[in-house]
Amino acid sequence: MRQGRLSAVLGLAFFLVLAAPGPAAAQPADGDGFASLMPVPERAAPAAGRFRVTEALTIGGGPQSRRADSAAVRFMTRLAARTGLFLEQDFLAARLPAGQGTVSYAFERPGQLAPNEDESYVLTISPDKVTLAAPTDSGIGWGFETLLQLLSADEQGYYFPCGEVRDKPRFTWRGLLIDAGRHFMPVEVIKRNLDGMAAVKLNVLHWHLTEDQGFRVESRLFPRLHQLGSDGQYYTQDQIRDIIVYASDRGIRVMPEFDIPGHSTSWLVAFPELASSPGPFAIERHFGVFGGSFNPIDERVFRLLDRFLGEMTALFPDPYLHIGGDEVEGKPWDANPAIQAYKKKNRIPDNHALQAVFNKRLLKILQKHRKRMVGWDEIFQPGLPADIVIHSWRGTKALVEAAQKGYQGLLSNGYYIDLCQTAEFHYLNDPLPADSPLTEAQKKLVLGGEATMWAELVTPETVDSRIWPRTAAIAERLWSPVTVRHVEDMYRRLRTTALRLEEVGLTHFKNQDMLFRRLAGTPDIRALKVLAEAAEPLKTYQRHSQGVTYTSLSPLTRFVDALAPESLAARGVRLKVDRFLETKDPQLDRELRATLLRWKSNHPPVLRLLARSPALLEIEGLSLALAETCETGLAALETIAAGETKDDKWVQEKLAALAGAKKPEAHAELAVVTAVEKLVLAAAGKS
Amino acid sequence: MRQGRLSAVLGLAFFLVLAAPGPAAAQPADGDGFASLMPVPERAAPAAGRFRVTEALTIGGGPQSRRADSAAVRFMTRLAARTGLFLEQDFLAARLPAGQGTVSYAFERPGQLAPNEDESYVLTISPDKVTLAAPTDSGIGWGFETLLQLLSADEQGYYFPCGEVRDKPRFTWRGLLIDAGRHFMPVEVIKRNLDGMAAVKLNVLHWHLTEDQGFRVESRLFPRLHQLGSDGQYYTQDQIRDIIVYASDRGIRVMPEFDIPGHSTSWLVAFPELASSPGPFAIERHFGVFGGSFNPIDERVFRLLDRFLGEMTALFPDPYLHIGGDEVEGKPWDANPAIQAYKKKNRIPDNHALQAVFNKRLLKILQKHRKRMVGWDEIFQPGLPADIVIHSWRGTKALVEAAQKGYQGLLSNGYYIDLCQTAEFHYLNDPLPADSPLTEAQKKLVLGGEATMWAELVTPETVDSRIWPRTAAIAERLWSPVTVRHVEDMYRRLRTTALRLEEVGLTHFKNQDMLFRRLAGTPDIRALKVLAEAAEPLKTYQRHSQGVTYTSLSPLTRFVDALAPESLAARGVRLKVDRFLETKDPQLDRELRATLLRWKSNHPPVLRLLARSPALLEIEGLSLALAETCETGLAALETIAAGETKDDKWVQEKLAALAGAKKPEAHAELAVVTAVEKLVLAAAGKS
Repeated sequence: MRQGRLSAVLGLAFFLVLAAPGPAAAQPADGDGFASLMPVPERAAPAAGRFRVTEALTIGGGPQSRRADSAAVRFMTRLAARTGLFLEQDFLAARLPAGQGTVSYAFERPGQLAPNEDESYVLTISPDKVTLAAPTDSGIGWGFETLLQLLSADEQGYYFPCGEVRDKPRFTWRGLLIDAGRHFMPVEVIKRNLDGMAAVKLNVLHWHLTEDQGFRVESRLFPRLHQLGSDGQYYTQDQIRDIIVYASDRGIRVMPEFDIPGHSTSWLVAFPELASSPGPFAIERHFGVFGGSFNPIDERVFRLLDRFLGEMTALFPDPYLHIGGDEVEGKPWDANPAIQAYKKKNRIPDNHALQAVFNKRLLKILQKHRKRMVGWDEIFQPGLPADIVIHSWRGTKALVEAAQKGYQGLLSNGYYIDLCQTAEFHYLNDPLPADSPLTEAQKKLVLGGEATMWAELVTPETVDSRIWPRTAAIAERLWSPVTVRHVEDMYRRLRTTALRLEEVGLTHFKNQDMLFRRLAGTPDIRALKVLAEAAEPLKTYQRHSQGVTYTSLSPLTRFVDALAPESLAARGVRLKVDRFLETKDPQLDRELRATLLRWKSNHPPVLRLLARSPALLEIEGLSLALAETCETGLAALETIAAGETKDDKWVQEKLAALAGAKKPEAHAELAVVTAVEKLVLAAAGKS
Repeated sequence: MRQGRLSAVLGLAFFLVLAAPGPAAAQPADGDGFASLMPVPERAAPAAGRFRVTEALTIGGGPQSRRADSAAVRFMTRLAARTGLFLEQDFLAARLPAGQGTVSYAFERPGQLAPNEDESYVLTISPDKVTLAAPTDSGIGWGFETLLQLLSADEQGYYFPCGEVRDKPRFTWRGLLIDAGRHFMPVEVIKRNLDGMAAVKLNVLHWHLTEDQGFRVESRLFPRLHQLGSDGQYYTQDQIRDIIVYASDRGIRVMPEFDIPGHSTSWLVAFPELASSPGPFAIERHFGVFGGSFNPIDERVFRLLDRFLGEMTALFPDPYLHIGGDEVEGKPWDANPAIQAYKKKNRIPDNHALQAVFNKRLLKILQKHRKRMVGWDEIFQPGLPADIVIHSWRGTKALVEAAQKGYQGLLSNGYYIDLCQTAEFHYLNDPLPADSPLTEAQKKLVLGGEATMWAELVTPETVDSRIWPRTAAIAERLWSPVTVRHVEDMYRRLRTTALRLEEVGLTHFKNQDMLFRRLAGTPDIRALKVLAEAAEPLKTYQRHSQGVTYTSLSPLTRFVDALAPESLAARGVRLKVDRFLETKDPQLDRELRATLLRWKSNHPPVLRLLARSPALLEIEGLSLALAETCETGLAALETIAAGETKDDKWVQEKLAALAGAKKPEAHAELAVVTAVEKLVLAAAGKS
């Protein structure tokens, strides 16, 4: 924020340089690492010269710390992997002391994994030496990620471009929520996503561990919880400890969430006597807001929670613990005479107030265990201590209200990556927008935000594709200066970032092909990949109203599940249409026709695949709609190029057909229909 | 073996049916599951009719056992995933009892995870009911894998073809060795490969856990072993227990190998005083046979091994333990005066005899811990107890000798999948070839074999592609009747099997694209994929003599690492050339020209990729050689088609150029040069 202006200018400069490369040696050229940094650093000053990456590169640094050592080893491993260079140094066993090595790092102290720790770093690259300095080893980790992003190539080989990066985050809380409750996410899913988080400098894994559909933590005090509540799909305490160390090595906090008193069906399988309504309970397969909630007036509930949260406190070192508290279903409380009597007796006017009473008890338990409480909007109430954090799924308004009353807040509204919205939508969503009514002091209470990967419709096979690369745009929003918000430049860098994110094992690209091969029963899936360029999954909650009911056992292996949430190819066509209609540039005309022709010609090959795969039959309509839409688009382009005008009848006919092509098919939709609408209107002289 | 003839005939019938589909309803048609089973079952009898797979399919079975329950859940999950069907039954919580369900299984007792357990099953499919029966739950697991392979599709949807499979394995020991010593293989690598093993009915994971390059097991008695010997890359005991359960759920034994007294450098980092030569020792980075070996006359060695192996006995329930014993480097023994004096005093003639003395002590330790000993050829010596197993890396001769002396044996010679040889080569390698000199009683001592995935040149990113799909051919050799050895039919089924193996998470297809994207720095990797069709990694040990020294830290991320060990596309071209030269079929001529033209035209796009990726520069020669080879092939085809003949000068020139094109480039080689040589000779009228 404070020193943001320069880097914002630089960020824009990169984009301008790309569009029209200048001759100055000190400016980043196309393909040069300075132009592709994501998130954009607070300050970056490219300079003349190149540090050549050769097999003789050595690394040295200090003092010794697990996090810095781990960062150095990962840096060298990934550098070797990307360049194919056989580095001469034994970077596992024989790293050099601080000050030595052609790449040298130094820090003052191990970083604390808590909000407001210093995460800054300064990276200096000269032709002979790369120096990385930071107050904490967390900064060292971020600096190495920046250095890897700077890796560039020219005809002489690989190099780091000379210059200086002085960087620190805008927000201290930059999170990703992974919901392991609705669909279990095995250890390797969590680990590779921690690596992805580290690559874009996110620093909080918010681990949603209990849901109606599953209780995912081993409890040694109450083993019936995971034994009866998880279908055998839970994390052992050893696995959790392993993941916490893995995250810590990458400068990432792990905050657990135990969602109570609602979203609690899976707890009640083991302890039906603690529910507000009569049991027995079974692990929920359906999604939604259900009646399985704790009885807020039963002392046994608080005894269980006290002991259980005590056990979890010993397991999770993070100072914060998320208690959920969202979407409490009041019906079972209303239907329980004892609860009604209690409310009457204690003059508790409604269920929201009853939840407030519950939360006050819970807060005491957390305070006893020295944890600070985080909860969703619903927990907000007067009289809470100042160290709690309100996590807003409802909107910035709630954050503003909380801050004005002196409470810390986090934004997740607008960062629901499960809803398959665009990177642009998430990117422009700012926890502290320019027009925020908050005072400077109040602004400091807005700690940051979290992307939320709710797991109704994802499995370990598809979850990476829902998180990445779009979460990199959110990461940039939370790290980079407020003024860095050039959408096109973000997308340009997002393409590069998406490729680099594969390096750490993420499957957002490769599992699309895998799912297509499984569906098609053949390795030749070109037709599906072409259709996938033009299609996206239905947005928001529309997939739940398509005539089938998804449960936690439903296969998520169909065409829609393999689609990227946002097709960058389709976005490219939409932009090209806009530019073409402005400029009538014949080169754009040619490019658009080539793409539309390719998409149009894709229908027969799709049909050939359907003939052997009943699971693909559902996409016939989608593929046909694409072919017809592209045919219309081509006709419109033809008309425009010929300087002719289509009559109203044609336009009405085509617009009606295009309206039809917007309808959901196979839980997906075409992402280019609006662009073709514009072409149709232009062909009628109406644009 | 005994009832093998029928199924062998059936196996051939499938292939013939494919080549010329007959009308009989009871014969498997192309695309029908009976035609794609791998391994081929002992007996399969297709019948008329189809069991329709719909959302109403239910599963029932019993008695309750972890293995059968797990198999049933995996069956339903994979069935739903492949078909996209929303199965109505809650197959996690509400499976039906035995006899009920449209798919019903029953077994008599839990199978023991030990050699010679009954793994047979009978699978019966009628239009209304699928019945799976087996003496043990291991048979149930194999039966479900067969049923999943039978899944077929027609215009009405998915179905299981009616018929009966009566199946059991030819060999009781069907293993895959995974070397986690030279390169560490994380838990998820082991788990997905266990799933791959289960899919092709392999039943022994031979886990090579210690090597010069790494000590990969947590020892609680001697924590310095894994702390100092692994670079932090080892399995915790909890992870090992988890993997053993995971394997057991799939009917797979887990046999650990602790390779001693050679290949032991990583042990000696912690205990240099136990070595034959003076320390200190460091974890070895280079590959080969090294001096770090235990001192065979030091009592402390046996005390350590006694306690350590006792600890491992408690961890690994398998009745067998592999002690390695291969490639003991005698030099440090020769150089040690105390060892020399001991040999002289005890009249031990040579180091082989000294190792025999060592092994006798080791055997006593294993016997004390009630483990049976397995070791490589070198351990073979007179006077061993009859329950040991000789594991042959040297050849069938050793197996024959062992069996003739009454010892059990396993074959791995010819199954070294790390050497990138063809599936055909491995497939035709039989532990008990038709001309075996062994008596029937002796034959029973040959327990089976193991594919060996040695890990000098693989990482978690590439190891699946070295194992799969070729190991499916070895699995068929070890499971199916001896007479099932039709190479073309094997390859036809291998293509289908390769696709299905992705279903369990294996990365043999998808990581090629990932590695290419990383190298190219762009998602458009078509040119690399085309070149990859025609190229293969260097075979056997040739990669080690290309002028660079591979260590355990070398990047294995280059073009050669992304290549499949055997290109089925190149194999297809070689076969087509042979058929064309026999038949002069113009259709084959057209197909060959199309492929050669596509490969030839690939060089310019490759060059464009090289311009931005220094790591790809090394493939320029390979790509050029392919273009020139294809040009030669096209010229030859042209000449043949025109009925003309090329002169000797042309032929000599071209053959010289083709000889050049056979040379290794970038540690890879072209797999189509011999085919073009044949075309050149034919064009000169010399074929």
